[in-house]
Amino acid sequence: MLNANVKHSFIKVVGEENFEDSKAGRLVYSYDATPNFQSMPDAVVSPRNKQEVAKIVKICNENSIPIVPRGSGTNLCAGTCPTEGGIVLLFKHMNKVIEIDEENLTVTVQPGVITLDMINQVEAKGLFYPPDPSSMKISTIGGNINENSGGLRGLKYGVTRDYVMALEVVLANGDIIRTGGKLAKDVAGYDFTRLFVGSEGTLGIITEATLKLIPMPETKKTMLALYQDIEAAAKSVSKIIANKIIPTTLEFLDQPTLVVVEAHAQIGLPTDVKAVLLIEQDGPPEVVERDMLKMEEICKKEQAISVKVAASDEEAEALRTARRSALSALARLKPTTILEDATVPRSEIAKMVNGINEIAKKYDLNICTFGHAGDGNLHPTCPTDARDHDEMERVEKAFEEIFVKAIELGGTITGEHGVGVMKAPYLELKLGKEGIAAMQAVKNALDPNNIMNPGKVFAKDSRKRVVITK
Amino acid sequence: MLNANVKHSFIKVVGEENFEDSKAGRLVYSYDATPNFQSMPDAVVSPRNKQEVAKIVKICNENSIPIVPRGSGTNLCAGTCPTEGGIVLLFKHMNKVIEIDEENLTVTVQPGVITLDMINQVEAKGLFYPPDPSSMKISTIGGNINENSGGLRGLKYGVTRDYVMALEVVLANGDIIRTGGKLAKDVAGYDFTRLFVGSEGTLGIITEATLKLIPMPETKKTMLALYQDIEAAAKSVSKIIANKIIPTTLEFLDQPTLVVVEAHAQIGLPTDVKAVLLIEQDGPPEVVERDMLKMEEICKKEQAISVKVAASDEEAEALRTARRSALSALARLKPTTILEDATVPRSEIAKMVNGINEIAKKYDLNICTFGHAGDGNLHPTCPTDARDHDEMERVEKAFEEIFVKAIELGGTITGEHGVGVMKAPYLELKLGKEGIAAMQAVKNALDPNNIMNPGKVFAKDSRKRVVITK
Repeated sequence: MLNANVKHSFIKVVGEENFEDSKAGRLVYSYDATPNFQSMPDAVVSPRNKQEVAKIVKICNENSIPIVPRGSGTNLCAGTCPTEGGIVLLFKHMNKVIEIDEENLTVTVQPGVITLDMINQVEAKGLFYPPDPSSMKISTIGGNINENSGGLRGLKYGVTRDYVMALEVVLANGDIIRTGGKLAKDVAGYDFTRLFVGSEGTLGIITEATLKLIPMPETKKTMLALYQDIEAAAKSVSKIIANKIIPTTLEFLDQPTLVVVEAHAQIGLPTDVKAVLLIEQDGPPEVVERDMLKMEEICKKEQAISVKVAASDEEAEALRTARRSALSALARLKPTTILEDATVPRSEIAKMVNGINEIAKKYDLNICTFGHAGDGNLHPTCPTDARDHDEMERVEKAFEEIFVKAIELGGTITGEHGVGVMKAPYLELKLGKEGIAAMQAVKNALDPNNIMNPGKVFAKDSRKRVVITK
Repeated sequence: MLNANVKHSFIKVVGEENFEDSKAGRLVYSYDATPNFQSMPDAVVSPRNKQEVAKIVKICNENSIPIVPRGSGTNLCAGTCPTEGGIVLLFKHMNKVIEIDEENLTVTVQPGVITLDMINQVEAKGLFYPPDPSSMKISTIGGNINENSGGLRGLKYGVTRDYVMALEVVLANGDIIRTGGKLAKDVAGYDFTRLFVGSEGTLGIITEATLKLIPMPETKKTMLALYQDIEAAAKSVSKIIANKIIPTTLEFLDQPTLVVVEAHAQIGLPTDVKAVLLIEQDGPPEVVERDMLKMEEICKKEQAISVKVAASDEEAEALRTARRSALSALARLKPTTILEDATVPRSEIAKMVNGINEIAKKYDLNICTFGHAGDGNLHPTCPTDARDHDEMERVEKAFEEIFVKAIELGGTITGEHGVGVMKAPYLELKLGKEGIAAMQAVKNALDPNNIMNPGKVFAKDSRKRVVITK
């Protein structure tokens, strides 16, 4: 609990109406989209501008109060779960698009703006912000930046990191710094812009961001390739890239995922095949046309049993929507859904999918796999029940083996979901003790009192998801 | 001078043949491409592998000996000038292309490989590494990474940072860490890959890098637009982008630069116009054709007095070569050439060029300006004479005003050359005291004994280029 003086200081900064410490009010922010993590904050504070953020941070730094910055809490790594108590810093008021600069192709936003709201505003001007996390209808740009969100278009267009040009950040000592600019080139000092992107709120609080936009592609086409063999699908992915085509989207869904998605979406997806690839290309019409033909040829040569281009925009949109609904469809199966995002080099996808299936069999689990095949970013997903402690133990062991397998294949434990609390115990697999020590040194340098989202990224202990935080 | 024990330790690691401390041997590495900076190292040590690098670093860390990593020393910020003595760590042996991975579109290299050698090898496989610093014939990839080198294709394709996927780095404590991977998506911990890119050797020693490649564009076209008015040229640049065309290259040369380049290259460049734009587009033939026509139209509408597409590859190559030779052509004019790279948002180019010209007039200097107009990265260049102390004082003041002007316009003090020693006194203009303090905290955390290229990035004092280091 906050002491009365501290509470009074917060209220002096943001006003009574933006300070909340009732039990009901705190309960709402005691969890995020991550299953099985819950922990109460001491208060929820909603600043209205960067000056207020700086004042709040100073109070927290002087009193060693943890700060958990939060947009919509859609992350899947318990990154916004207040595991150490302290305050949730809620960006509900700082949710404006500040400027769309059509000459420099940038958009400047406050962190609390909803991703899709921003996208709609820039698209109205013929501009394109490529990162498209599946949660974009409710996620915020601040959250996307803190997690370095990916999405379906990562293969061709990259991830959030590749579109952040400048940041305004409040540091743990209350200093407000600006990084980068509307500049295609800037080497004045270290690349702090990208150090903060994906730092999960552990290094500072982002209060403003300038994002890069690109011209809107002229057209887009969508196709679905069906396979009776997972390896054939994976090989098609590699062959497409080796043929020097970089499609916008190259999504993979295995049969168990397909069955569930079709039951949910009911758009006529085939459920009697072992795997499908959802392939999209965008760009000038001539190029899209040519690439689609070439990819169709490649998929057929690699044993696709059917390749079909969506006949209309509506059909294409239905396919995309179905793919985006994979997680929510899977979440309907069982009370608890454990979704991971182990990622491997593109060339290793078949090995990884086979590896996941073997591990699932070994631990007697139902693991469905879908994901961004083009960038090797897979989402093995296990519908389970947190109350079934025996199964949860097996889930835990299975996912640990999945992480180890990904690392063995040159991959990583998380492609786009972040480390948070959930994957902190596994971080050493990827970085080694030395790598973690170096990152911790940077964390300590910028946040010596460990007030910035403590308990995230770096494991305090080896607690895994089996134990539920009270 | 190194003491005998330390010298013996280095020789034990690399062998007599890779240790050099004769006066002549040290003299060669007492300067780089930066005018007016010279300082003797105590020795030159050439490791053959990462284990040797780690051993050398440990010796240096225990004995507080500065390490200056060096490829070809083509940087323009005195980034490889051993201003604090210590050893030059020369990467002449670690110069191999380790692997070209055609399935994952990556190339893995040692830091000492010559940029163009690597480019030739990947192009032989139909793959493309876009960053093209003007020094690429002799620069090394290690140097490019440490400086985050840019080049002529930055507008469309980005800079070195955008192509580094993974690094192997020896830290100051001798730990060897690996960052990233052959992974389009990876959010396991902080983005150390990009923290090291552009850190100018001040955070660690890069011993291996995996770079992203893309498919080779099918075709390329080049054109030259002539203007009697600098603002018309600048406006054409903005209009091209606002029309949603992102050309590969959008280079600007003012009249004084043109005159010098033509005298040097003799390829029939017009010298009676106020400015030219060298514009290139690459990609599928249909798209290149269409974009070139549209850009021709835009330039004419914006008062270009002539727009001419290069008739042949040879003519295009001659134009590119002429542009690339701008610095060497200007360097022939006077004993000393001061070249800067103040950078502004694209929309501010006309204001910046006019500002430079006013400042040149005020200080009675001849400043020629050329550069990458598409990304706002200008190279105001002053042919002068370091022995003329009066003129050098004026040069110093003029460039300080140029930096201030760039910052005023939302720009930066260096777009692609780096801070090094040269621009360290001006870094505060861009970052503020708070920003520098935060970066220094990170530096101290990773290199507490300050052995990693000390004296670079952060100013020890306000010494500027007027005073020559002995």
